[in-house]
Amino acid sequence: MKQKVVIIGGGAAGPKIAAKLLRTKDFDCTIDLYTDENIISYSACGLPYYIEGIIPDSEKLIVRRPQQFEEQGANIHLNQKCIKIIPDEHRIIVQDTKTKETKEVQYDKLAITTGARPIIPSIENIELKNIFTVRTIQDGINIRKQMLNSKKAVILGGGYIGIELLEAFYSNNVHTVMIERQNNILSIFDPEISSMIAQQITDMGEGRIEIITADAITAFEGNEKVERVITKNGRVIETDMVVVAAGIRPNTEIAADAGIELGVSNAIRINNRMQTSKKDIYAAGDCTENFHLVSRNYTWIPLGSTANKQGRCAAINISGKYDAFPGVLGSAVTRFSKLSISLTGLSETEAKKFGFDVITSTMTKKDKAGYMPNAEDITLKLVVDRRLKKILGAQAFGGGDADKRVNTVASAILAQQTLDEFLHLDMTYAPPFSTAVDPLLSAALIINNKMYM
Amino acid sequence: MKQKVVIIGGGAAGPKIAAKLLRTKDFDCTIDLYTDENIISYSACGLPYYIEGIIPDSEKLIVRRPQQFEEQGANIHLNQKCIKIIPDEHRIIVQDTKTKETKEVQYDKLAITTGARPIIPSIENIELKNIFTVRTIQDGINIRKQMLNSKKAVILGGGYIGIELLEAFYSNNVHTVMIERQNNILSIFDPEISSMIAQQITDMGEGRIEIITADAITAFEGNEKVERVITKNGRVIETDMVVVAAGIRPNTEIAADAGIELGVSNAIRINNRMQTSKKDIYAAGDCTENFHLVSRNYTWIPLGSTANKQGRCAAINISGKYDAFPGVLGSAVTRFSKLSISLTGLSETEAKKFGFDVITSTMTKKDKAGYMPNAEDITLKLVVDRRLKKILGAQAFGGGDADKRVNTVASAILAQQTLDEFLHLDMTYAPPFSTAVDPLLSAALIINNKMYM
Repeated sequence: MKQKVVIIGGGAAGPKIAAKLLRTKDFDCTIDLYTDENIISYSACGLPYYIEGIIPDSEKLIVRRPQQFEEQGANIHLNQKCIKIIPDEHRIIVQDTKTKETKEVQYDKLAITTGARPIIPSIENIELKNIFTVRTIQDGINIRKQMLNSKKAVILGGGYIGIELLEAFYSNNVHTVMIERQNNILSIFDPEISSMIAQQITDMGEGRIEIITADAITAFEGNEKVERVITKNGRVIETDMVVVAAGIRPNTEIAADAGIELGVSNAIRINNRMQTSKKDIYAAGDCTENFHLVSRNYTWIPLGSTANKQGRCAAINISGKYDAFPGVLGSAVTRFSKLSISLTGLSETEAKKFGFDVITSTMTKKDKAGYMPNAEDITLKLVVDRRLKKILGAQAFGGGDADKRVNTVASAILAQQTLDEFLHLDMTYAPPFSTAVDPLLSAALIINNKMYM
Repeated sequence: MKQKVVIIGGGAAGPKIAAKLLRTKDFDCTIDLYTDENIISYSACGLPYYIEGIIPDSEKLIVRRPQQFEEQGANIHLNQKCIKIIPDEHRIIVQDTKTKETKEVQYDKLAITTGARPIIPSIENIELKNIFTVRTIQDGINIRKQMLNSKKAVILGGGYIGIELLEAFYSNNVHTVMIERQNNILSIFDPEISSMIAQQITDMGEGRIEIITADAITAFEGNEKVERVITKNGRVIETDMVVVAAGIRPNTEIAADAGIELGVSNAIRINNRMQTSKKDIYAAGDCTENFHLVSRNYTWIPLGSTANKQGRCAAINISGKYDAFPGVLGSAVTRFSKLSISLTGLSETEAKKFGFDVITSTMTKKDKAGYMPNAEDITLKLVVDRRLKKILGAQAFGGGDADKRVNTVASAILAQQTLDEFLHLDMTYAPPFSTAVDPLLSAALIINNKMYM
C-alpha cells in the first residue's frame, strides 16, 4: 500500500529526504513537502559569498528547484505553513501564507525539518531601515544592494556568519565594526586561539576592520534608516547598515505544541534513526538536537553537513530500511579571506568542563615546505585526554587547507584513536602539499614529548 | 659514560637522528655523521620545483647546514664514505672520497641511513651528454641549466618524480615526451585511475606533453650530446635532453657485506625500534624495508615523510628510551600543475593480490560548493573489504587539496575503521571548502548503497 510521506520544511534536510525517497526504488510512497517560503533547497551557507560578489547570481544558490521534484513525482507546496501537528490522528494542519486558508493533510510518516531562525535581540529601534538578518536569499539580495551603497557597516555577532560577512564587507571596501557580547569572537574556540584569530583578521583588514568584544549594542539611532549604534560601554558608532548575526534558534514551536519531546536548546530530541518521541514522526536538520560523540552529551550544533546526513538517514528509515546516525563531532569551518578557521571535537575549555584530564599542544608551522614561495602558517591546537590518551579535539587556523588537517583529526577522533597510534599516521608528503613532518604530526609529537620524553 | 653514536648518511634520516639526539638532554653522547657527499640534509623532493623555477635558489633546499650541527656539538664529516662495517668489533671504516685515505671509527651505537640511488638502465650510449638523473642539488642545477636551453626533452619513467619534472618542463615551454615501460604511468594506482590521470595531464599540456606507455628506450643517439631516443616499438624521438627517472634502489651493499639482514628489494630489515639484525646497529630512511599496515606484508616504499619518522624513532631508541614505528600506509602525493595526485593504503589491484574481498567506488564531484567560481573536480576511489568492512585504501586526483581527503582516509585506515563508522565522519563544511556532503563521504555512501540499499 502506498505510504503517504509528509515533510514540513524546505531547507536542507527536507529536500534531502524527498530526494533520497525518490531514489528508493522498492518503497511505494507519495511525497508532499510543505514550506512557508516561496522557495526550497537553497544554500544559506552560500549567502555571504553572494553578498561578497563571488557568486554573481543568487539563483546559483538554489540546489534543487520545485519543478525538478515535481517532475520526479514529489509534490512541493510553497507558501504553505504547517501550524499544527496532531500525532494521534496522523495529520497536520497547513495554512496558506497569503490567503490564510487552512487545510488538513493526512500522513503515514511525517518528517519535521523546520530548521532554525535568527535570534532578534530586543534592541531599541531595531525596526529601523538597513538593519538586516541573514537567512533567506532575499536577505542576501537586500544586504548586497545596501552594502554597495555603504561606506560603513556594523556586524552584531562574532560567530561563523559574522566572520564571513566581515570578509564580504572588507573585500567590498566597507569599513566594518564587529561587536561581540562575549570576551572573544568565535567563542567556541579556546580564548587564546580566538584572540589570535581576531588579531590576524584585524591585521589583514588594513584598517577597515575593527573587532570589539565584551560589549553589546543597546540602541540603534537614526531617522528612518539606521545611522548610529550605541553600545553598553558607551561607544557611538556611525554606520550605514547593520547585520544582526547574533545566533539562531530552532523552529520547534509546532513540535512542542504537539507534545514531541524537545532537548537541549529546545531542539527536537531524536534517536539514532531520526525518530522523535511520537510514533511515525521523524525529524532532521537544524531543528534537532545532536549527540556529541566526544563529550557523550546532547548538544545543539546546527550545520548543513549534519542536516544532509540526517536527511539521508531519516529517508532510509522512513522507507522501512535501517540506518543510524550516531552523532556529531561538531566539525566546522569558516574563513576570512585566505585564513581558514576550523575545529572538531572539544576545545580545551569544553573538555575540562566535561571532566577530561586534558593535555594540549599549540604550534605554528608552514603548511608546505618552507622553501615553497606560497607556504603559509598553520596554527594547530590539539586536545588530548592524558589518562586515556584519546584525542578529544583540534582547532586550526591559517593557510588554505588548515581545515583539512582538522578533518584528518576528526577521522581519528571518530575512531577513538589514541595519540600514540595517531602519531604514526602516514600522511602524504610532497613540498607543495606539506612539510616532511606535517604540522598535524608535529602538534601530536609535542604532546608525546610532554608525556614521555 | 659518554656513548659514541655514529651515523652513516646525510640525507633525511641521518640528520634527523643527529638533531633529535642533540635535543635529548639526559643522554650523554658524541655524535659523528659521515657522508660521501659534500652536503647534508637537503630536500631532494624539492628539486623538481627548483628546476621549474618556483624556488629561485638551490640553497633554499638545504634544511640544516653542517655548521649548525657543529655549533650544537655534532661532528659532520663530509666527503667521507663508509666502505665497511664490522659489527662484531663495533667499528666502521671510512674513506676520504678525494684523498682515498681510510680510517677506522669506533661506535657504541651505529645508525645506517644510506638512502637510495637512481637506477641507471643499461641503454646504449647512456653516457652521452645531457642525459641526467635527479638526486643531488648539482643534478638539479645541471638539469635546469640545460632545460633553459632546450626545446624538447624526454623523461624516462612515469613515476612521481617523472610527473613533477613534466610540470617543470611544461611550465618552461619545453615539449616533453614521457616514456614508461609499463602499461600505465603511476603504476601504483589502479589502471583506470592512472589512465584518467594520464589523459588529464595530456589535455592540460596544450600539445606540449606526450605520454607513451608500454614502450622502452633501447638506445640513445647523438654526437657527444644526446640528439635522439630510439624505442623498442620503433619510435625515433628527437630531443635536446633526457632525464632518467626510472626508479631507485637502496644503498645497502655495505650493510649486506656486514651480514646485516636485508628484506624486500634488498632494503635493510628493521624491527619496530629501527634495530637491524646486528646488535647496536640501527637503520632508518630510504635504505630500510617497511611493514605495510594494511597488507600486513613487508614492502619497500621509500619516502621522505617515513624517513623523518624513522629517524626520530631511531634516535629515541639509541638514547635508551622506547619508541616504536609500527609501519606505513604508503601515503604519497605528487602533482602536475594544479592537479594533485595521491593515494594511501592498497589499490584495488594490490588488495586483490593480498586476498581481500574487495568492493570499490569511484566518483567525481566538485571539491567545493558547485556555485563557488573556483570549484574543481575531485575523483576519488575507495577500496573496502566487503566482509570485514574495513577501509583498505584510497586514490584521489583533482583540484588543490584532493590529497587532504586521502589523509583523512589514511587516519581511518590506521584506526582500522569500518566503512559503516567512517560514513558518519563529521567533516567540516562551508562553501569555499567542500560540498555539504564531502566527496569523500559520497564515495563511502556509494559503497554503502551497493551493500545495503
